[in-house]
Amino acid sequence: MQEEKSVTILLVEDNPNDEELTLHALKKNHIVNSIDVVRDGAEALEYVFCTGKYAERSIDSPPKVILLDLKLPKVDGLEVLRQVKADERTKKIPVVMLTSSRLERDIVESYRLGVNSFITKPVDFEQFSEAVRQVGMYWMLINTTPDE
Amino acid sequence: MQEEKSVTILLVEDNPNDEELTLHALKKNHIVNSIDVVRDGAEALEYVFCTGKYAERSIDSPPKVILLDLKLPKVDGLEVLRQVKADERTKKIPVVMLTSSRLERDIVESYRLGVNSFITKPVDFEQFSEAVRQVGMYWMLINTTPDE
Repeated sequence: MQEEKSVTILLVEDNPNDEELTLHALKKNHIVNSIDVVRDGAEALEYVFCTGKYAERSIDSPPKVILLDLKLPKVDGLEVLRQVKADERTKKIPVVMLTSSRLERDIVESYRLGVNSFITKPVDFEQFSEAVRQVGMYWMLINTTPDE
Repeated sequence: MQEEKSVTILLVEDNPNDEELTLHALKKNHIVNSIDVVRDGAEALEYVFCTGKYAERSIDSPPKVILLDLKLPKVDGLEVLRQVKADERTKKIPVVMLTSSRLERDIVESYRLGVNSFITKPVDFEQFSEAVRQVGMYWMLINTTPDE
């Protein structure tokens, strides 16, 4: 079962183009075969805390990493980050901000709330694809997370 | 000055062999040209908080990333991590545990204390070198930290 638990990436992204590019970069490089996508912050919280339409999920089967956009409908990325990192049950899930923001206050606030990594999306397509590849490689293959 | 501020890796490692291998892997790949090494946890805290023999350093010039061993003389790695992540001035510095420990309790406790990433050192030399290269690349070139 452990295998099944730890191989999913949760992508929180409301921009269809960025979603497509991200999925393409991750799949092309065979980094991951299981990616769940949610498109707003409220759904991201339901997914992580296994409530609402995700009530069937188990909080003991967290995604291996959360790739989180900053500007999101309903609940913004910083609030999602805050809630994930404030709860002992979910704090251990690596959260990577993947955003077009280069605003110093967004970067500072993300680190203050306990983000694991902050990635500014390159504008250039090839560079974006390469950055996503490296992010996926790092958090799926190099980084270690708790088993449970 | 900004250039000067953000390009240093702080390596906290008491094992001379692991130090040499890590420095070799980082330098060989031209990932970084400035690496400061301290060999126990007490010195790591002095470095980060600019006290003792590091009183001349400025806390506004943090290392770009701290590569932190777990088992260290004087003050252990988890306590160094706890202090860095408990202080608003230093919380934003990415801390990567780089350790031979695979103990679940070390991994869980590291995430509880707010580690950015946990890397289990591969035993094999080539794999160790490759892991260090990827860690260096990621935190020096892909990850974004606040300017100040």
